[in-house]
Order: sequence, then C-alpha cells, then structure tokens
Amino acid sequence: MAISKQSVYEPLTESTAISLALRLGLFPEGTPLTCREIGDGNLNLVFHIVDQNTNKGIIIKQALPYAKVVGESWPLTLKRAVIESNALRTFASYVPEYVPKVYYSDESLAVTVMEDLSHLQIARKGLIEGKTYPLLSQHIGEFLAKTLFYTSDFGLNQQQKKQLAQSFVNPELCKITEDLVFTDPFFDHDTNNFEEELRDDVEALWNDSALKLETAKLKRKFLTEGDALLHGDLHTGSIFASDEETKVIDPEFAFYGPIGFDLGQFFANLLLNALSRNEEEREPLFVHVEKTWKVFRETFSELWENHNVETYAKVPGFLQEVLDKAFTDAIGFAGCEIIRRTIGLAHVADLDGIEEKEKRLNAKRHALRLGKTLILKRESISEIQEIRELFAQTAE
Amino acid sequence: MAISKQSVYEPLTESTAISLALRLGLFPEGTPLTCREIGDGNLNLVFHIVDQNTNKGIIIKQALPYAKVVGESWPLTLKRAVIESNALRTFASYVPEYVPKVYYSDESLAVTVMEDLSHLQIARKGLIEGKTYPLLSQHIGEFLAKTLFYTSDFGLNQQQKKQLAQSFVNPELCKITEDLVFTDPFFDHDTNNFEEELRDDVEALWNDSALKLETAKLKRKFLTEGDALLHGDLHTGSIFASDEETKVIDPEFAFYGPIGFDLGQFFANLLLNALSRNEEEREPLFVHVEKTWKVFRETFSELWENHNVETYAKVPGFLQEVLDKAFTDAIGFAGCEIIRRTIGLAHVADLDGIEEKEKRLNAKRHALRLGKTLILKRESISEIQEIRELFAQTAE
Repeated sequence: MAISKQSVYEPLTESTAISLALRLGLFPEGTPLTCREIGDGNLNLVFHIVDQNTNKGIIIKQALPYAKVVGESWPLTLKRAVIESNALRTFASYVPEYVPKVYYSDESLAVTVMEDLSHLQIARKGLIEGKTYPLLSQHIGEFLAKTLFYTSDFGLNQQQKKQLAQSFVNPELCKITEDLVFTDPFFDHDTNNFEEELRDDVEALWNDSALKLETAKLKRKFLTEGDALLHGDLHTGSIFASDEETKVIDPEFAFYGPIGFDLGQFFANLLLNALSRNEEEREPLFVHVEKTWKVFRETFSELWENHNVETYAKVPGFLQEVLDKAFTDAIGFAGCEIIRRTIGLAHVADLDGIEEKEKRLNAKRHALRLGKTLILKRESISEIQEIRELFAQTAE
Repeated sequence: MAISKQSVYEPLTESTAISLALRLGLFPEGTPLTCREIGDGNLNLVFHIVDQNTNKGIIIKQALPYAKVVGESWPLTLKRAVIESNALRTFASYVPEYVPKVYYSDESLAVTVMEDLSHLQIARKGLIEGKTYPLLSQHIGEFLAKTLFYTSDFGLNQQQKKQLAQSFVNPELCKITEDLVFTDPFFDHDTNNFEEELRDDVEALWNDSALKLETAKLKRKFLTEGDALLHGDLHTGSIFASDEETKVIDPEFAFYGPIGFDLGQFFANLLLNALSRNEEEREPLFVHVEKTWKVFRETFSELWENHNVETYAKVPGFLQEVLDKAFTDAIGFAGCEIIRRTIGLAHVADLDGIEEKEKRLNAKRHALRLGKTLILKRESISEIQEIRELFAQTAE
C-alpha cells in the first residue's frame, strides 16, 4: 500500500484517501465508498468520504506544503496539521459540542481525520443567503469564554499553561496574520487588492499616521501577548452552522495570543455580512455581535468566580479589568479585520459578492470608515451596543 | 573517570570539578590547580578553579536539583543550566563586554564552565560597603537596551523571535518569581518573613485591595507579555562590577517577558541600597537609577531608528509608546521587588544588614511605603527624576 505511517509526505488523491480510511478501520473492508475533494480554502486538501450504504461520512483534511492562492511559491509548514489536530483536541476537552471529533491524525502525512459535518453549512455562506442562525452567538460566546478561560493563567495551572503555549508556537501561520491583517493593508504593499475606484480612500488610509500608530499597537499585542490558546482565524468561514448546531473548524492558526483577537475577528465578519445587507436586514447581525459579547462576558465571569486558579482572582476589579481589556482589544482587532477583508489579499464573499458595482463600492467605503473608527475609538467604547451606532454613523 | 558526557547527573565535588576542567583541556595536564566551592546562592554549586602558577582561573557552575534555601524538598529543574548558558551566549552575541565568556556547557551534568570574574566584586556587596561604581548605570543601561531590543520583534526577525522565545520557555524558574515577587508578599503566605514589629504595616498592605489590583495587573504582564529575552533576576547580586567593568551573571531565570521587568528589578535594588544608607550618601544611587533609564532610552532609541525590522517603526509616536510602557511597567515592577525584598522569602543584605534595630525597621517601613507608592502611582510618573521625590515623600 502506498500509504503507511512511516511514509514521507505526499498529497493524497481521492483514491489514496479512501485507502487511508479503510486502513484506519473507519469503514469495514468492502464498504462502497465515494470520495470527493471539497477544499475551498487556500492551504489544504479536504476529502469527503461517504459510505454509499449508510450515507455516513468522514473528512480527511491534509495540509499542503504551499499556499494555493499564490501557487507553489509560498511554502508553508506542514506542522500546521499537528497544530490543528492538537487545537481541536484541546478545544474538545472544554467544549466538545462545538468542534468536530478528531478520529486520527498523522504528523508525517499532515493529515487530520475527523467528523463529517456536511449536514451543516458554512456560516458565511448561509449568512450571505440571508440565514440568521439564531444560536450562533450563544454558541460562539460559550466556545470563546470556555476555551479562552481554561487555557489562560486563570483557568489552567501556570506551569501547564506555559507548556501548552510552547507546544502551540506557530510562527509561519502567525506571520500570515501579522502581514495580511496587521501590516500590508495599511501600507502600499503588493499583496493588497482593491478596485481602482477605492484608491483615494485607500491612500487616505495609508497616509493616516494616527490610524497607523493604533494599528501598530494592536499588532504588537498580537505579537507579544500570550493570554490564551486562540483559534486564530475565527471568521464565519471557519464555522459550520445550522439553526441548532454550531461547530468551529480549521484552527490551524492556533497559538497563544491576546484574548480579544478571536472575539474581534468574529465581530468583524458579522459586521462584514451586515455591510453587505440592506439596512432593514442587518438587525440579526447586530444582535449576534451584542449577544456574543454578552454570553462571553457572562460565561467567562462565571468561570472566573468558580474555577479561577489565580490567587488574585477575588481582588475587586480584576475580572472587570480583564474583561475591559479584552473588549477594547476585540474592537480594535475587529477594525483591522474589516479593513483587510476589504482591501487586503483575502477578501470575503459577503462584500465581493455584491453584484451592483456602486452598491459594492459604497459598502466597501463604509467598511473602511467603520474599520478605521473601531480602531481609533476603541478605548472610548464601553458598551457593545455602541458598535451599531458607529455602524450607522459611518454609513456616509 | 567518573565524569563523562554520557554520565547521569551527580553533584560535582571540588575534586571532580578539577577532573572536568582537565578533561576539557582548559588547563594542561599536570597544572597545579586549586578548587574552592564559593556558591552563595540557593540553587547552584559554584567552583572556582585556579592555576597556582599563573593565578588564572575558571568558574564551573552546576545547577542543583533542589533549592538549598528550603532543603532538598523544593525540587528544581536542571534545565535551568541550559537556559543560563544559552542566555549568556545570546547576550554575548549583542553585548560580549557585559557577560562572562562561556567555555563549555553540558546539559546532562547541568554544568556551565565560564570566565573567572574574581577580579570583580558582586555589586551588592560593594554598594553595601559604600562603593559607587561610576560606570554601573552606563553599562547596565546599554546591556538592557541592546539585549532587549535585539531579542524583541523590533530587532529580530519575527519568525526567529518566536523560535528563540520557545527555546526559553522556563516554567519552574518563572514560578519562583510569580510566587515570591508577585503573590506571596501581598497575602498572608507562609513563605513571608518579616520582623514582628512590622506586622501592622504588612497587614495593612495585605488589606489594601487597590494595591492588590495593581499588583495583579503587573503579575499578569509578567505571565503573558513576551516582548523580549529577559535576564529575569537582574538584582545587584547578579552583577559583578569594578570602577571600570560590569558583568551580568546568573541568567537562569531568563525567559521572554515584558521589557520593563529587568529595568524595574535593577531600579529596585539600587533603591533598596539607597534605603540602607544615610540621606547624604544616597545621591549616587539616585544618579544610577536616572542614568540607567537615560542610557537605556537613548540606546534603545538609536537602535530603533537604525536597526528596526518592524514595518511600523517609523510611524510617529510608536517608539514613544513602547518606551512609555516600558517605563511605567518598570516602576511598577520595581515597587513589587522592593516590597518582596522587605517582607518576602528572599531578603537583601542591604536592609537586613542594618544593625541598629530601629533604624532597620524604619528603613523597611520606608521601603514598604516606597514600593506601594511606585506601584500605585506608576501611571502618573512621567520623568525618572520623580522617583527621588517619591523616595523623599515616603520617608515618613
């Protein structure tokens, strides 16, 4: 058999993926299996293998040694497959209900075999279609509160936390975020990608040194603050959802970073969807932003009161301080994400999918104003409801 | 021979230390060598081996698998010897003039063989004797600016920085600082150690929840902010000095932490010496505190302007922001160090050596007031000269 545990890396095909599934005993020999490569990301192959008798399936995800978006010229460590499977397992120990089950992982093949979630839909896709996913913010708020609390110095023995942080050092994937989220969009860099009609707006942003100073501070937080194990790429394309269920996938960017980062990316992608909608259809997105924070705050606070291992936990004001910092940071990070998804390398279908050109350009200009405002005003925002006010104020 | 590269760990004796030195070829066979164990720390054996013909020597430092201060009951990782020799080598690549040369290190024996600095004196001892070491602050300011800048995201490629940080993850030694500097002295913990006459002052401190909130914030910075490779224990007992030379030793607490921490510990130990002196003899210590900061700021700024690898380096205000944060943090960390050296487990000879009891108790009360003030007022202090004013204001 071509594939063995000792084999050196080679990309799977639909046929060798089936062989792997059989070898692992995930289906009995002789099961009629179909396999389809369904990856739509830039960094991985994703095989969906289905038993034609029972219709039950599995997913085999394999990291590619390069980023597809720029061809084979952008090599990427295969270690991210280990990061991903370890992150899924770590998250599963706190919130098994919100991540896919991992059945098997193999470092040399850069493979993770996991639960088939094809009964769910990628949240971004559903939101673009106008779905609202009523439980999305409840679930993501809980997911974030529990994973961030239990991997931080508040929820985990401080010795174990350092060892866990060491095992999630993730330089190459962090660099993608450092460059594409925090740096390139704020400079005239060749990775940027925007309609020529936006050039004046974009150049104004590049010349805004007050904005750049605040973005520099936010980037520094991302580079240096190791609060907790982050998902690291928690946009709505990393979430499978239905009206009842929510599953967070693709944590290959996981590393120890600032608590506010995942919150901020999630807020931003909800707001990017709101930007793509007509005014009267935005309400569910604002409600999601507000409820995510509310659920996060309440769940994190409850864990803090009852499961905190830090001696200072009961000192009046400390919890509030930690929450306030996470909130302020999250708003700033959200601003960076909104801007980079509008003019940086990796766009979102929410905005790019607006067919009418003037409408699309207006939505993008609104996005740039909103992102900038969130970054600059983050320290004066004290209530999550203010975000919808800033959204309205930056409409023109 | 008992000692070989493959040997399992066992503590050296004066005689096996000599064998090791000969085996390493640091002296020709037949050289008349003397060896003395001169360790006065709590965690290591230190052998001073001298060639009786030339009077030239070497130092062999060996980590003990426990802390002497509490007997064999406090086990400690031997990996700290690797941390120490790697930190000395890393520092030497930036400031060879301020650290001892490392000739050899052996992970299994937890041994570092290094330059003999016995022509110099431990700075704490000299300062207690009334020496002033005119170049001390110039040298330490440069040492800190260069080591902190070049190991940070500003001076080092951000990929290499993460790998370096990963190699300096140091949970056990960090825990000593987390407990003994940032936690135990602020609670009624059995590691604390103070004269019964100070009980009222100490209990007032334990009941001061505003102070504890600020200390909790400072501890959190120590736990989470990975700016640069710190020495981690930069008190005046970790510095060899003369009127011409300064050498920083003992970086076994090295790890990636906040830039202000080493600065703060050094400030604190200068101030602890000032607290032990009569008023008219304090000036050289205040000058050292001020000059350390001034040299640090100027050197760090020069490196920032000319060697910064961060894209945002030239954004107006960013350098000032980084310096301001380091300054504020340093003052807070200094306050914690002053308090813990007064009432915590590990005291300093500067204060404990004051023979007259009332004078000693008054100096310690002054230390507690000064430490508390530095912690509480750190954000409103903008100039280093204000420290001497706060020192005077907290005298009674």
